Amino acid sequence: MRKDCYVCRSEGFNAHARVSISTQRKTIIATVNVVSNDSLSHQEVGLSESAWHRLEAQDGDKAYFHHAKPAESMSYVRGKLHGTRFSDNASHHIIRDITQGLYSDIQLAAFVTSCAGDRLNTDEVIGLTKAMVDAGSHLNWESDMVMDKHCVGGLPGNRTTPIVVAIVTAAGLTMPKTSSRGITSPAGTADTMETLAPVNLTISQVRSVVEKEGGCIAWGGSVSLSPADDILIRVERALDLDSEGQLVASIISKKVAAGSTHALIDIPIGLTAKVRTLDYAETLADKLISTGAVLGLKVETIFSDGQQPVGRGIGPSLEARDILLTLQNKPDAPQDLRQRSLIIAGKIFEMGGITVKNQGISLAEKILLSGQAWSKFQAICEGQGGMRIPPTATYKHEVIADRAGVVCYINNRLISKLAKLAGAPASPAAGLDMHIRLSDRVELGMPLFDLYAQSSGELQYTLDFLNEHPGAIQIEEDVL
Amino acid sequence: MRKDCYVCRSEGFNAHARVSISTQRKTIIATVNVVSNDSLSHQEVGLSESAWHRLEAQDGDKAYFHHAKPAESMSYVRGKLHGTRFSDNASHHIIRDITQGLYSDIQLAAFVTSCAGDRLNTDEVIGLTKAMVDAGSHLNWESDMVMDKHCVGGLPGNRTTPIVVAIVTAAGLTMPKTSSRGITSPAGTADTMETLAPVNLTISQVRSVVEKEGGCIAWGGSVSLSPADDILIRVERALDLDSEGQLVASIISKKVAAGSTHALIDIPIGLTAKVRTLDYAETLADKLISTGAVLGLKVETIFSDGQQPVGRGIGPSLEARDILLTLQNKPDAPQDLRQRSLIIAGKIFEMGGITVKNQGISLAEKILLSGQAWSKFQAICEGQGGMRIPPTATYKHEVIADRAGVVCYINNRLISKLAKLAGAPASPAAGLDMHIRLSDRVELGMPLFDLYAQSSGELQYTLDFLNEHPGAIQIEEDVL
Repeated sequence: MRKDCYVCRSEGFNAHARVSISTQRKTIIATVNVVSNDSLSHQEVGLSESAWHRLEAQDGDKAYFHHAKPAESMSYVRGKLHGTRFSDNASHHIIRDITQGLYSDIQLAAFVTSCAGDRLNTDEVIGLTKAMVDAGSHLNWESDMVMDKHCVGGLPGNRTTPIVVAIVTAAGLTMPKTSSRGITSPAGTADTMETLAPVNLTISQVRSVVEKEGGCIAWGGSVSLSPADDILIRVERALDLDSEGQLVASIISKKVAAGSTHALIDIPIGLTAKVRTLDYAETLADKLISTGAVLGLKVETIFSDGQQPVGRGIGPSLEARDILLTLQNKPDAPQDLRQRSLIIAGKIFEMGGITVKNQGISLAEKILLSGQAWSKFQAICEGQGGMRIPPTATYKHEVIADRAGVVCYINNRLISKLAKLAGAPASPAAGLDMHIRLSDRVELGMPLFDLYAQSSGELQYTLDFLNEHPGAIQIEEDVL
Repeated sequence: MRKDCYVCRSEGFNAHARVSISTQRKTIIATVNVVSNDSLSHQEVGLSESAWHRLEAQDGDKAYFHHAKPAESMSYVRGKLHGTRFSDNASHHIIRDITQGLYSDIQLAAFVTSCAGDRLNTDEVIGLTKAMVDAGSHLNWESDMVMDKHCVGGLPGNRTTPIVVAIVTAAGLTMPKTSSRGITSPAGTADTMETLAPVNLTISQVRSVVEKEGGCIAWGGSVSLSPADDILIRVERALDLDSEGQLVASIISKKVAAGSTHALIDIPIGLTAKVRTLDYAETLADKLISTGAVLGLKVETIFSDGQQPVGRGIGPSLEARDILLTLQNKPDAPQDLRQRSLIIAGKIFEMGGITVKNQGISLAEKILLSGQAWSKFQAICEGQGGMRIPPTATYKHEVIADRAGVVCYINNRLISKLAKLAGAPASPAAGLDMHIRLSDRVELGMPLFDLYAQSSGELQYTLDFLNEHPGAIQIEEDVL
């Protein structure tokens, strides 16, 4: 808005004021930026793209501007800061206001901070989870058992979901999987899957493929299962603040809203993974299980090694390649990715009562080796709109060992960063192809990984960053 | 920046990324907004006005963009959230990073939230105050006694400072007062004073008028005494979160940086004032006094009635009128404003050892009645660049009582809001002129206050708001 605009002045809007904008069609909450040049006339406002879309605005629309009604639920946040617990009612109001966009970033940060660490007790976590479920849309399924999985994350290349869904649905279980896109990571399951088939499905498309094949691997974004969570995650990431309670509410609310009855949650533990210690993993597991139980979701957890990337490829196309090698039982399939997928699928079989305890993994392997998983995966891809061939990158650069020795450390965060800088996931073919794993013996000049990019600029920039941050892979010399 | 800009992609900037921008002259931290239309070309970026000025940019400048180095002191904030106290070193790093603009709004909100309520102990408040003083510029004065005052605020029209400075300096004490402009209030002392004389003085201008007259009433903005505080206050206001510790650090750091040796702090107590209870006022007073003592500032506090506005005028020009009436000893001077000014000036005399206890107020009154205060005020205005005549408003509207009875409640916040909507302080002549005070008897149709505005639109908008929010002044009927 113009700084000297009549509305701006009479309403008393300053820069960053929160305003409600209404057209005949819709009302949204937005933040004001003021301009003092003539890029806008007095009766004119400009909207950001997201505001434009949320408002479903059209050129020449007449809009009405008012101060946004204050987010009254902030009083509960203030109360929390003075020691009052969140009641179910408080959580409900806070999440509703957040979903409606009434909270500014500053207020979101205050809420996230008020929940930081272990500040939420069990009742508060349950209340928050319920509130998040209520605030979003829900999916319902015919079958009385709906399987789901989740990985707490932090491991580049850890793309077990498509393999697990193929194995589990091949055995006749229902597994309608909705996955996310990479926001701070070089690829989300949706990004990787999109190189193999369409993932941007409508609810009815999801329904039809699940009816026919028993499962899918779709993008969750088209189905807004926990909109408040999507808003909060952005702020949590910016603050790099972990809140146990928020994490539990985030995971469980999405599974419940997705209509799942059983969920297996993989918690990788490692210095540069999201969960760094076994203690924290155990607390997290307890909270996930107990909160799930209250909301009617049967949760089981497994702890896994979080010290290094999984598979060889990092980035959508390269991860897709690993998935295909595994499903097609190729000899050069990454064994760690294969093994993790079999463990998870096996556990899901046991949860679903398909096998007795400890027999799940062998059934999973049988289904994989028989080729049933591969055919099922192809069928699902067809059901989602047709199988695709992942694109390949134009630029490649081999990064080699600057000394001989044993690989003693891999920094997951730096590896992810490199893949992102190379262009992933925006450029699906970009990323890293790892040639080494922890405790591998390397010789001077041996390739550590290949970098792939779609533009020479991005490749160069990634190499510059690599020179400034050589610590991604550490090689210990003179090991006896 | 363009969304598809090479730098944007290779650096991996998304919307809201924090970036460092460097020209040959300067480096600043800013937040990225991305555009996807052709308003910018590939090698082009647009800057906000504030970024443009802070960067001292010129058209055609070449600038370099990088990810801002993360605000490493955020780790202390995270630590605080997990129970670790702020060490002096932690406070120092946090305040330095905030001053350098390394903290995003989200991070500022997390820091403010981590200090909310009584989360800061005495040591932390002292450490924070020292850090704030170190981060800004300092003023030094010849005389070994430099008097100062402050009002914790929330009362519209409470403009005692110009009167107090005139009386105190007339008695020979040194009182170089730097004041703020109204940000959320309809007028700051600097806004009001500006209708009577220039307040936008350079340090050397301040020095010369203080040397000659012993005092001044200047805008503190030109002298950045506690830059971190100016940044934090904006976020605290947006959150409406009060942090005792932050408030104390904010007040004391500015007084110490201003070179004051003695400060009298007025704490108005009232339902719609900043301080609502006597208990809180007492805690606050203790912390102000003890923190001041450690930093070599002698602090005394007074509690005053915070139930209603002070004086009649609310808004720069109207408040200036009340100040002149008082300094000129006019019979229709607002007695409450006069009385408050005398009490404060009297206390400052006692702090400065000019009189013994309880004799200050009579000396203050003597100086006011003698006309010395008025001549001193005129001299200070001349010293600051020449006395001015406050502007008067074009539009006036009388708001009348809708019933007979006794005025039983006045909402300071709503009264301030009305004055702001009418255009104050941007339009200095805009605001309210109160005709009633608490416990006044009014008849149906009697004027309660006059509204003044510079545009009919602003006047109309204020009246609309008044109709929607009639609770600003409550009249109790059938009082016996």
